[in-house]
Amino acid sequence: MQLPQGFLLSGMHCGIKRKKLDLGLIYVKDYCQASAVFTTNANPAYSVTVSRANIAHPIKAVLVNSGNANCYSHKQGLADTWEVVSRLGRFLGVKKENILIASTGIIGKKLPKDKIIKNFPALVKNLSTTVKGFSQSILTTDTFAKISRAKVNSGLLKADILGFAKGAGMIFPNMATMLGFILTDAALPSDIFKKITRQAVEESFNSISIDGCMSTNDTVFFLSSAKVPLKSKGQITKFSLKLKAVCLDLAKMIVRDAEGATKFAQITVSGAKSHREAKTAGLALANSDLFRAALYGANANWGRIIAALGQAGIKVKENIFIKSNDLKKKEIKILVNLKRGKYSAIVYTSDLTPEYVKINAEYS
Amino acid sequence: MQLPQGFLLSGMHCGIKRKKLDLGLIYVKDYCQASAVFTTNANPAYSVTVSRANIAHPIKAVLVNSGNANCYSHKQGLADTWEVVSRLGRFLGVKKENILIASTGIIGKKLPKDKIIKNFPALVKNLSTTVKGFSQSILTTDTFAKISRAKVNSGLLKADILGFAKGAGMIFPNMATMLGFILTDAALPSDIFKKITRQAVEESFNSISIDGCMSTNDTVFFLSSAKVPLKSKGQITKFSLKLKAVCLDLAKMIVRDAEGATKFAQITVSGAKSHREAKTAGLALANSDLFRAALYGANANWGRIIAALGQAGIKVKENIFIKSNDLKKKEIKILVNLKRGKYSAIVYTSDLTPEYVKINAEYS
Repeated sequence: MQLPQGFLLSGMHCGIKRKKLDLGLIYVKDYCQASAVFTTNANPAYSVTVSRANIAHPIKAVLVNSGNANCYSHKQGLADTWEVVSRLGRFLGVKKENILIASTGIIGKKLPKDKIIKNFPALVKNLSTTVKGFSQSILTTDTFAKISRAKVNSGLLKADILGFAKGAGMIFPNMATMLGFILTDAALPSDIFKKITRQAVEESFNSISIDGCMSTNDTVFFLSSAKVPLKSKGQITKFSLKLKAVCLDLAKMIVRDAEGATKFAQITVSGAKSHREAKTAGLALANSDLFRAALYGANANWGRIIAALGQAGIKVKENIFIKSNDLKKKEIKILVNLKRGKYSAIVYTSDLTPEYVKINAEYS
Repeated sequence: MQLPQGFLLSGMHCGIKRKKLDLGLIYVKDYCQASAVFTTNANPAYSVTVSRANIAHPIKAVLVNSGNANCYSHKQGLADTWEVVSRLGRFLGVKKENILIASTGIIGKKLPKDKIIKNFPALVKNLSTTVKGFSQSILTTDTFAKISRAKVNSGLLKADILGFAKGAGMIFPNMATMLGFILTDAALPSDIFKKITRQAVEESFNSISIDGCMSTNDTVFFLSSAKVPLKSKGQITKFSLKLKAVCLDLAKMIVRDAEGATKFAQITVSGAKSHREAKTAGLALANSDLFRAALYGANANWGRIIAALGQAGIKVKENIFIKSNDLKKKEIKILVNLKRGKYSAIVYTSDLTPEYVKINAEYS
């Protein structure tokens, strides 16, 4: 699989997990511009805090580990994380500010930083244009690697978009973390790049909910190596659409891989007074245990929709319109028309199953 | 069982459910003063809307039906509900403003008002000082009737407190509704009565969570027939403590009767900067699917506590203290000390089990 120009990838086993790949690297031949959306959890992982500090700098590499959330472990946790990125920076001949880091796994355990640092040479030696190692190194309980790609023509040139994601199969035995890494060689003005990436996240990764539990580690990185200039408005619009499509593709894969899930549900809320109202309504359903249990049981219990909307502060009249296809299908489509405005939003979720509870009750 | 002075109770089958009791009445020989806490759901049941309008009036009777939530059924739903209370008022020789009403059951179905109205004579004829009929008429999927009582001495007299509750065994196949009816013959100034009852709810019914789903029908009524004057500050304080105890007793019964639950958990959050922070922290845990699944699996996965606190906006340092008894016990006690203040709160929940999902997935 071809990478966007200017990137190399690596993935390996460094010993955080027993056997599986647990350390990944995105390397940028030159520097690249980056944009990110982070969790709003008030107790973010140390990795999130460090990346938040570095995101506006030119980026040389992104380090990812799985098997340890690098969150709430000990007082030196943040200092340890700065040490890891400093050491990687030194090894690559750049500053600590030029490194991003993301982690996923169990909360509360000290990151084995020495295992990571001593494997930098092997990790860098392993860099290539293949995707397999990196795509697997970021996984936890995911049952499959999540990769999506698109191309945008720009005159005689082509800009590539390549995205990876992991989640929200619950991080056994911990909580869901969603990580996303979207690489592109398209060159755009940095303010437009930021705007486009934020919109893409809003309509994809921020439009899914599995269990309403927000991770300490959620992160989506966008990296642009700026090799293929996009100049016209039309090209930028096309790029924006393709970027959204890649993000939505990955977000849907995350929902399909939700632990214990047997069904994928697309909820369209229309007729809202604002986009925010439509989205709030959709997420109120996607976050409702009772609504999601009804999906599992193919139980057309629309009273639960009224109650969930009301809990989210959305007062409705007795005229709203609710429709769905056969709830026994694996792919459920539900339409809720609030009949009071012209705005709509689409959100995605899975059913709540006894298997979900069992998986998250067990301790390995 | 003796009732507080001035009250009579009745419970019967009127045909909303197939066989079980579904219509209850609290009758006040003279008028009584009432206080209430209602759901904050933006789509409340018609019964809630009517009772909210009437609560400040002198109350002659409280009508309760189970098997139908009387919520979001048709455009005449609210008018129908006013008709029901008007007709009961006329039958009892009082105004519609002197009647309260509460409902619990399936959302979205028209209340069979004629079945209710035509049974007023039988319901009133059936009034007595026994509690059995009434306590059963308010149940849905509850596996036992919830009754609690206390006495407060006032000189040579004794004031009685008698409470009934139902919930939050999920209303099969609908959602949890919690109803509470607390009767007393103690006489207190109305502003103090209101204040005391609000505090009692805050530390009992508002300190439990089963699944974070808020009903359209939740209602707790306090009725005082004012036969036994409480005069001294000390007596009022004693009354307040006993009233809280009755409410807490009922609230705990509700959690113990939660559908599918195998464990009862008491979560104490201490060391908070304010009572609100402590309560927010406790409810963040009680509302977390992942935390509650961990209770089911006896999985001491405290990372989920950090994540749930952060999702609720509560930033913690690496020094917080978490302790529990053996998680395999049926009665779990968890202590979370935030170590930054002197406030605390206690909340109650049950474990999230595969059985809960099964029950709420099925349709009868």
